[in-house]
Amino acid sequence: MRVFGVDPGLTRCGFGVVDGGPGRTVRPVAVDVVRTPADADLAVRLLQLSDAVERWLDAYRPDVVAVERVFSQHNVRTAMGTAQAGGVVALSAARRDLPVVFHTPSEVKAAVTGSGRADKAQVTAMVTKLLGLKVAPKPADAADALALAICHLWRAPMKTRMEEAQARAAELARAHRAKLAQAVAKTGRNAQ
Amino acid sequence: MRVFGVDPGLTRCGFGVVDGGPGRTVRPVAVDVVRTPADADLAVRLLQLSDAVERWLDAYRPDVVAVERVFSQHNVRTAMGTAQAGGVVALSAARRDLPVVFHTPSEVKAAVTGSGRADKAQVTAMVTKLLGLKVAPKPADAADALALAICHLWRAPMKTRMEEAQARAAELARAHRAKLAQAVAKTGRNAQ
Repeated sequence: MRVFGVDPGLTRCGFGVVDGGPGRTVRPVAVDVVRTPADADLAVRLLQLSDAVERWLDAYRPDVVAVERVFSQHNVRTAMGTAQAGGVVALSAARRDLPVVFHTPSEVKAAVTGSGRADKAQVTAMVTKLLGLKVAPKPADAADALALAICHLWRAPMKTRMEEAQARAAELARAHRAKLAQAVAKTGRNAQ
Repeated sequence: MRVFGVDPGLTRCGFGVVDGGPGRTVRPVAVDVVRTPADADLAVRLLQLSDAVERWLDAYRPDVVAVERVFSQHNVRTAMGTAQAGGVVALSAARRDLPVVFHTPSEVKAAVTGSGRADKAQVTAMVTKLLGLKVAPKPADAADALALAICHLWRAPMKTRMEEAQARAAELARAHRAKLAQAVAKTGRNAQ
Protein backbone atom coordinates (compact mmCIF):
# COMPACT_ATOMS: atom_id res chain seq x y z
CA MET A 1 0.00 0.00 0.00
CA ARG A 2 1.25 3.44 -0.90
CA VAL A 3 0.39 6.33 1.43
CA PHE A 4 0.65 10.04 0.69
CA GLY A 5 1.16 11.80 4.03
CA VAL A 6 0.48 15.51 4.27
CA ASP A 7 1.38 17.85 7.12
CA PRO A 8 -0.92 20.70 6.08
CA GLY A 9 0.09 24.35 6.10
CA LEU A 10 0.04 27.43 3.90
CA THR A 11 3.56 28.71 4.62
CA ARG A 12 5.05 25.20 4.58
CA CYS A 13 3.15 22.05 3.66
CA GLY A 14 4.97 18.74 4.16
CA PHE A 15 4.48 16.05 1.50
CA GLY A 16 5.74 12.49 2.01
CA VAL A 17 5.05 9.28 0.10
CA VAL A 18 5.81 5.92 1.73
CA ASP A 19 5.23 2.35 0.56
CA GLY A 20 4.29 -0.31 3.08
CA GLY A 21 5.67 -3.80 2.56
CA PRO A 22 5.14 -7.11 4.36
CA GLY A 23 5.19 -6.96 8.16
CA ARG A 24 6.07 -3.48 9.29
CA THR A 25 8.53 -2.65 6.50
CA VAL A 26 8.31 0.86 5.07
CA ARG A 27 10.07 2.30 2.05
CA PRO A 28 10.50 6.02 1.26
CA VAL A 29 9.27 7.12 -2.17
CA ALA A 30 9.29 10.92 -2.13
CA VAL A 31 9.41 13.85 0.24
CA ASP A 32 9.21 17.61 -0.18
CA VAL A 33 7.89 20.79 1.35
CA VAL A 34 5.59 23.05 -0.65
CA ARG A 35 5.65 26.74 0.21
CA THR A 36 3.23 29.48 -0.78
CA PRO A 37 4.05 33.21 -0.51
CA ALA A 38 2.79 34.76 2.75
CA ASP A 39 1.96 38.03 0.96
CA ALA A 40 -0.29 36.37 -1.64
CA ASP A 41 -4.08 36.22 -1.34
CA LEU A 42 -5.42 33.29 0.66
CA ALA A 43 -7.31 31.98 -2.39
CA VAL A 44 -4.16 32.10 -4.53
CA ARG A 45 -2.17 30.25 -1.86
CA LEU A 46 -4.84 27.55 -1.65
CA LEU A 47 -4.79 27.24 -5.44
CA GLN A 48 -0.99 26.85 -5.53
CA LEU A 49 -1.17 24.20 -2.83
CA SER A 50 -4.01 22.40 -4.61
CA ASP A 51 -2.02 22.37 -7.87
CA ALA A 52 0.98 20.86 -6.04
CA VAL A 53 -1.26 18.16 -4.52
CA GLU A 54 -2.66 17.33 -7.96
CA ARG A 55 0.87 16.99 -9.38
CA TRP A 56 1.85 14.60 -6.56
CA LEU A 57 -1.32 12.53 -6.94
CA ASP A 58 -0.59 12.27 -10.68
CA ALA A 59 3.07 11.41 -10.15
CA TYR A 60 2.87 8.95 -7.25
CA ARG A 61 -0.67 7.48 -7.47
CA PRO A 62 -1.10 6.72 -3.75
CA ASP A 63 -3.78 4.31 -2.48
CA VAL A 64 -4.71 6.57 0.41
CA VAL A 65 -4.03 10.08 1.66
CA ALA A 66 -3.22 10.64 5.35
CA VAL A 67 -3.59 14.18 6.65
CA GLU A 68 -2.70 15.58 10.05
CA ARG A 69 -5.84 16.51 11.96
CA VAL A 70 -5.66 20.03 13.32
CA PHE A 71 -7.40 20.52 16.64
CA SER A 72 -6.27 23.92 17.75
CA GLN A 73 -3.21 26.07 17.81
CA HIS A 74 -2.14 29.09 19.82
CA ASN A 75 -2.54 31.33 16.79
CA VAL A 76 -6.14 31.16 15.50
CA ARG A 77 -5.16 32.69 12.16
CA THR A 78 -2.51 29.99 11.60
CA ALA A 79 -4.93 27.27 12.71
CA MET A 80 -7.50 28.42 10.15
CA GLY A 81 -4.90 28.46 7.37
CA THR A 82 -3.78 24.97 8.36
CA ALA A 83 -7.36 23.72 8.40
CA GLN A 84 -8.00 25.24 4.98
CA ALA A 85 -4.83 23.69 3.57
CA GLY A 86 -5.92 20.29 4.93
CA GLY A 87 -9.37 20.77 3.44
CA VAL A 88 -7.91 21.49 0.00
CA VAL A 89 -5.79 18.33 0.18
CA ALA A 90 -8.79 16.22 1.26
CA LEU A 91 -10.86 17.68 -1.59
CA SER A 92 -8.30 16.70 -4.25
CA ALA A 93 -8.18 13.16 -2.89
CA ALA A 94 -11.98 12.89 -2.71
CA ARG A 95 -12.25 14.06 -6.35
CA ARG A 96 -10.19 10.97 -7.26
CA ASP A 97 -12.19 8.64 -5.01
CA LEU A 98 -9.14 8.17 -2.80
CA PRO A 99 -9.77 7.52 0.89
CA VAL A 100 -8.62 10.35 3.15
CA VAL A 101 -7.75 9.58 6.74
CA PHE A 102 -6.96 12.09 9.46
CA HIS A 103 -4.55 11.30 12.28
CA THR A 104 -3.86 13.52 15.28
CA PRO A 105 -0.29 14.69 16.00
CA SER A 106 -0.17 12.52 19.13
CA GLU A 107 -1.28 9.43 17.16
CA VAL A 108 1.52 10.09 14.69
CA LYS A 109 4.13 10.63 17.39
CA ALA A 110 3.00 7.53 19.28
CA ALA A 111 3.11 5.42 16.10
CA VAL A 112 6.71 6.24 15.20
CA THR A 113 8.31 6.92 18.62
CA GLY A 114 6.09 5.05 21.10
CA SER A 115 5.21 8.29 22.88
CA GLY A 116 2.41 10.70 21.99
CA ARG A 117 4.42 13.52 23.52
CA ALA A 118 7.70 13.00 21.63
CA ASP A 119 9.37 16.18 20.34
CA LYS A 120 10.14 17.07 16.72
CA ALA A 121 13.78 15.93 16.93
CA GLN A 122 12.69 12.49 18.15
CA VAL A 123 10.11 12.13 15.37
CA THR A 124 12.70 13.15 12.75
CA ALA A 125 15.26 10.71 14.20
CA MET A 126 12.80 7.78 14.11
CA VAL A 127 11.55 8.61 10.60
CA THR A 128 15.14 8.73 9.36
CA LYS A 129 15.88 5.38 11.01
CA LEU A 130 12.65 3.59 10.00
CA LEU A 131 12.99 4.63 6.36
CA GLY A 132 16.74 3.97 6.26
CA LEU A 133 17.48 7.50 5.07
CA LYS A 134 21.09 8.69 4.92
CA VAL A 135 20.13 12.28 5.68
CA ALA A 136 17.39 13.42 8.06
CA PRO A 137 14.47 15.00 6.17
CA LYS A 138 14.25 18.76 6.70
CA PRO A 139 12.40 20.91 7.65
CA ALA A 140 10.29 19.25 10.40
CA ASP A 141 7.20 19.44 8.12
CA ALA A 142 8.84 17.02 5.67
CA ALA A 143 9.65 14.55 8.46
CA ASP A 144 6.12 14.95 9.84
CA ALA A 145 4.59 14.11 6.46
CA LEU A 146 6.65 10.89 6.29
CA ALA A 147 5.73 10.09 9.91
CA LEU A 148 2.04 10.53 9.01
CA ALA A 149 2.35 8.07 6.15
CA ILE A 150 4.12 5.52 8.38
CA CYS A 151 1.52 6.08 11.12
CA HIS A 152 -1.22 5.32 8.63
CA LEU A 153 0.49 2.16 7.33
CA TRP A 154 0.86 0.87 10.88
CA ARG A 155 -2.45 2.02 12.29
CA ALA A 156 -4.66 1.11 9.31
CA PRO A 157 -4.71 -2.68 9.85
CA MET A 158 -5.35 -2.15 13.56
CA LYS A 159 -8.12 0.34 12.86
CA THR A 160 -9.75 -2.03 10.36
CA ARG A 161 -9.63 -4.88 12.88
CA MET A 162 -11.11 -2.60 15.57
CA GLU A 163 -13.91 -1.48 13.25
CA GLU A 164 -14.67 -5.09 12.29
CA ALA A 165 -14.81 -6.06 15.95
CA GLN A 166 -17.11 -3.13 16.70
CA ALA A 167 -19.38 -4.02 13.78
CA ARG A 168 -19.57 -7.62 15.02
CA ALA A 169 -20.38 -6.42 18.55
CA ALA A 170 -23.10 -4.12 17.22
CA GLU A 171 -24.56 -6.99 15.18
CA LEU A 172 -24.64 -9.25 18.25
CA ALA A 173 -26.28 -6.50 20.30
CA ARG A 174 -28.91 -6.00 17.57
CA ALA A 175 -29.65 -9.74 17.46
CA HIS A 176 -29.90 -9.80 21.26
CA ARG A 177 -32.31 -6.85 21.32
CA ALA A 178 -34.49 -8.45 18.63
CA LYS A 179 -34.66 -11.69 20.62
CA LEU A 180 -35.53 -9.74 23.77
CA ALA A 181 -38.27 -7.79 21.98
CA GLN A 182 -39.69 -11.05 20.66
CA ALA A 183 -39.68 -12.56 24.15
CA VAL A 184 -41.38 -9.45 25.58
CA ALA A 185 -44.03 -9.49 22.85
CA LYS A 186 -44.70 -13.18 23.52
CA THR A 187 -45.02 -12.55 27.28
CA GLY A 188 -47.41 -9.68 26.51
CA ARG A 189 -49.61 -11.96 24.35
CA ASN A 190 -49.60 -14.69 26.98
CA ALA A 191 -50.64 -12.16 29.65
CA GLN A 192 -53.67 -11.01 27.63
CA MET B 1 -21.33 43.94 -10.40
CA ARG B 2 -22.57 40.51 -9.39
CA VAL B 3 -21.41 39.12 -6.04
CA PHE B 4 -21.64 35.52 -4.84
CA GLY B 5 -21.80 35.65 -1.04
CA VAL B 6 -20.99 32.52 0.93
CA ASP B 7 -21.58 31.88 4.62
CA PRO B 8 -19.32 28.84 4.89
CA GLY B 9 -20.20 25.69 6.79
CA LEU B 10 -20.30 21.93 6.39
CA THR B 11 -23.69 21.25 7.97
CA ARG B 12 -25.27 24.31 6.36
CA CYS B 13 -23.54 26.56 3.84
CA GLY B 14 -25.39 29.74 2.82
CA PHE B 15 -25.22 30.78 -0.85
CA GLY B 16 -26.52 34.17 -2.03
CA VAL B 17 -26.10 36.00 -5.32
CA VAL B 18 -26.80 39.75 -5.48
CA ASP B 19 -26.43 42.27 -8.31
CA GLY B 20 -25.31 45.80 -7.50
CA GLY B 21 -26.83 48.62 -9.56
CA PRO B 22 -26.24 52.38 -9.67
CA GLY B 23 -25.94 54.11 -6.29
CA ARG B 24 -26.62 51.66 -3.52
CA THR B 25 -29.29 49.61 -5.30
CA VAL B 26 -29.11 45.85 -4.83
CA ARG B 27 -31.11 43.15 -6.58
CA PRO B 28 -31.50 39.53 -5.39
CA VAL B 29 -30.57 36.87 -7.94
CA ALA B 30 -30.48 33.57 -6.05
CA VAL B 31 -30.31 32.19 -2.54
CA ASP B 32 -30.05 28.71 -1.08
CA VAL B 33 -28.52 26.64 1.67
CA VAL B 34 -26.36 23.65 0.83
CA ARG B 35 -26.23 20.87 3.40
CA THR B 36 -23.85 17.94 3.64
CA PRO B 37 -24.56 14.83 5.76
CA ALA B 38 -22.97 15.04 9.22
CA ASP B 39 -22.22 11.31 9.20
CA ALA B 40 -20.26 11.43 5.89
CA ASP B 41 -16.46 11.61 5.74
CA LEU B 42 -15.03 15.12 5.90
CA ALA B 43 -13.46 14.71 2.45
CA VAL B 44 -16.80 13.64 0.95
CA ARG B 45 -18.57 16.59 2.56
CA LEU B 46 -15.97 19.00 1.17
CA LEU B 47 -16.38 17.41 -2.27
CA GLN B 48 -20.18 17.79 -2.18
CA LEU B 49 -19.81 21.42 -1.15
CA SER B 50 -17.20 22.05 -3.84
CA ASP B 51 -19.49 20.54 -6.49
CA ALA B 52 -22.34 22.82 -5.37
CA VAL B 53 -20.03 25.86 -5.56
CA GLU B 54 -18.98 24.87 -9.10
CA ARG B 55 -22.64 24.57 -10.16
CA TRP B 56 -23.41 28.04 -8.80
CA LEU B 57 -20.33 29.60 -10.43
CA ASP B 58 -21.43 28.01 -13.74
CA ALA B 59 -25.04 29.10 -13.35
CA TYR B 60 -24.63 32.67 -12.06
CA ARG B 61 -21.16 33.75 -13.32
CA PRO B 62 -20.40 36.22 -10.49
CA ASP B 63 -17.67 38.89 -10.82
CA VAL B 64 -16.42 38.31 -7.30
CA VAL B 65 -16.88 35.87 -4.43
CA ALA B 66 -17.33 37.20 -0.88
CA VAL B 67 -16.76 34.73 1.95
CA GLU B 68 -17.29 35.20 5.66
CA ARG B 69 -13.98 35.25 7.47
CA VAL B 70 -13.93 32.85 10.40
CA PHE B 71 -11.89 34.01 13.35
CA SER B 72 -12.81 31.61 16.09
CA GLN B 73 -15.80 29.86 17.48
CA HIS B 74 -16.64 28.23 20.78
CA ASN B 75 -16.45 24.79 19.20
CA VAL B 76 -13.00 24.22 17.68
CA ARG B 77 -14.24 21.28 15.62
CA THR B 78 -16.99 23.41 14.06
CA ALA B 79 -14.55 26.27 13.46
CA MET B 80 -12.19 23.94 11.58
CA GLY B 81 -15.05 22.62 9.42
CA THR B 82 -16.15 26.16 8.68
CA ALA B 83 -12.62 27.19 7.75
CA GLN B 84 -12.26 24.17 5.47
CA ALA B 85 -15.59 24.92 3.79
CA GLY B 86 -14.46 28.51 3.22
CA GLY B 87 -11.14 27.28 1.81
CA VAL B 88 -12.90 25.01 -0.67
CA VAL B 89 -15.07 27.90 -1.85
CA ALA B 90 -12.04 30.19 -2.23
CA LEU B 91 -10.22 27.49 -4.19
CA SER B 92 -13.04 27.10 -6.74
CA ALA B 93 -13.11 30.86 -7.28
CA ALA B 94 -9.31 31.09 -7.61
CA ARG B 95 -9.38 28.29 -10.23
CA ARG B 96 -11.58 30.59 -12.34
CA ASP B 97 -9.43 33.68 -11.70
CA LEU B 98 -12.26 35.24 -9.73
CA PRO B 99 -11.31 37.60 -6.90
CA VAL B 100 -12.17 36.26 -3.44
CA VAL B 101 -12.72 38.72 -0.62
CA PHE B 102 -13.21 37.87 3.04
CA HIS B 103 -15.37 39.99 5.34
CA THR B 104 -15.72 39.54 9.08
CA PRO B 105 -19.17 38.96 10.61
CA SER B 106 -19.06 42.40 12.27
CA GLU B 107 -18.22 44.10 8.95
CA VAL B 108 -21.22 42.37 7.38
CA LYS B 109 -23.56 43.28 10.24
CA ALA B 110 -22.33 46.89 10.25
CA ALA B 111 -22.79 47.16 6.47
CA VAL B 112 -26.44 46.08 6.44
CA THR B 113 -27.71 47.21 9.88
CA GLY B 114 -25.32 50.01 10.90
CA SER B 115 -24.18 48.03 13.95
CA GLY B 116 -21.40 45.44 14.12
CA ARG B 117 -23.20 43.77 17.00
CA ALA B 118 -26.64 43.37 15.42
CA ASP B 119 -28.36 40.02 16.01
CA LYS B 120 -29.43 37.48 13.39
CA ALA B 121 -33.07 38.66 13.35
CA GLN B 122 -31.97 42.23 12.62
CA VAL B 123 -29.67 41.11 9.79
CA THR B 124 -32.46 39.00 8.26
CA ALA B 125 -34.94 41.90 8.57
CA MET B 126 -32.58 44.34 6.82
CA VAL B 127 -31.63 41.87 4.06
CA THR B 128 -35.34 41.24 3.40
CA LYS B 129 -36.00 44.98 3.25
CA LEU B 130 -32.92 45.99 1.20
CA LEU B 131 -33.54 43.29 -1.41
CA GLY B 132 -37.33 43.91 -1.45
CA LEU B 133 -38.06 40.26 -0.71
CA LYS B 134 -41.64 39.24 0.06
CA VAL B 135 -40.52 36.46 2.39
CA ALA B 136 -37.55 36.56 4.76
CA PRO B 137 -34.78 34.21 3.61
CA LYS B 138 -34.41 31.17 5.90
CA PRO B 139 -32.42 29.74 7.62
CA ALA B 140 -30.11 32.48 8.97
CA ASP B 141 -27.24 31.13 6.82
CA ALA B 142 -29.17 32.07 3.66
CA ALA B 143 -29.78 35.62 4.95
CA ASP B 144 -26.12 35.86 6.00
CA ALA B 145 -24.93 34.91 2.51
CA LEU B 146 -27.07 37.67 0.98
CA ALA B 147 -25.85 40.12 3.64
CA LEU B 148 -22.25 39.22 2.73
CA ALA B 149 -22.89 39.98 -0.93
CA ILE B 150 -24.52 43.32 -0.07
CA CYS B 151 -21.66 44.12 2.32
CA HIS B 152 -19.19 43.51 -0.46
CA LEU B 153 -21.09 45.66 -2.97
CA TRP B 154 -21.16 48.55 -0.50
CA ARG B 155 -17.71 48.17 0.98
CA ALA B 156 -15.82 47.50 -2.25
CA PRO B 157 -15.91 51.07 -3.65
CA MET B 158 -14.99 52.45 -0.22
CA LYS B 159 -12.12 49.98 0.10
CA THR B 160 -10.84 50.87 -3.37
CA ARG B 161 -10.97 54.60 -2.55
CA MET B 162 -9.14 53.96 0.74
CA GLU B 163 -6.45 51.97 -1.01
CA GLU B 164 -6.04 54.65 -3.68
CA ALA B 165 -5.73 57.33 -0.98
CA GLN B 166 -3.16 55.24 0.86
CA ALA B 167 -1.18 54.67 -2.33
CA ARG B 168 -1.21 58.43 -3.05
CA ALA B 169 -0.07 59.19 0.51
CA ALA B 170 2.76 56.64 0.21
CA GLU B 171 3.81 58.19 -3.12
CA LEU B 172 3.89 61.70 -1.59
CA ALA B 173 5.91 60.40 1.39
CA ARG B 174 8.38 58.74 -1.00
CA ALA B 175 8.76 61.97 -3.03
CA HIS B 176 9.24 63.93 0.19
CA ARG B 177 11.90 61.51 1.45
CA ALA B 178 13.74 61.68 -1.89
CA LYS B 179 13.73 65.52 -1.80
CA LEU B 180 14.98 65.45 1.78
CA ALA B 181 17.77 63.00 0.91
CA GLN B 182 18.80 65.25 -2.02
CA ALA B 183 18.86 68.31 0.25
CA VAL B 184 20.92 66.43 2.84
CA ALA B 185 23.41 65.24 0.17
CA LYS B 186 23.71 68.80 -1.16
CA THR B 187 24.32 70.16 2.35
CA GLY B 188 26.98 67.49 2.85
CA ARG B 189 28.77 68.47 -0.39
CA ASN B 190 28.63 72.15 0.50
CA ALA B 191 30.11 71.43 3.92
CA GLN B 192 33.11 69.58 2.45
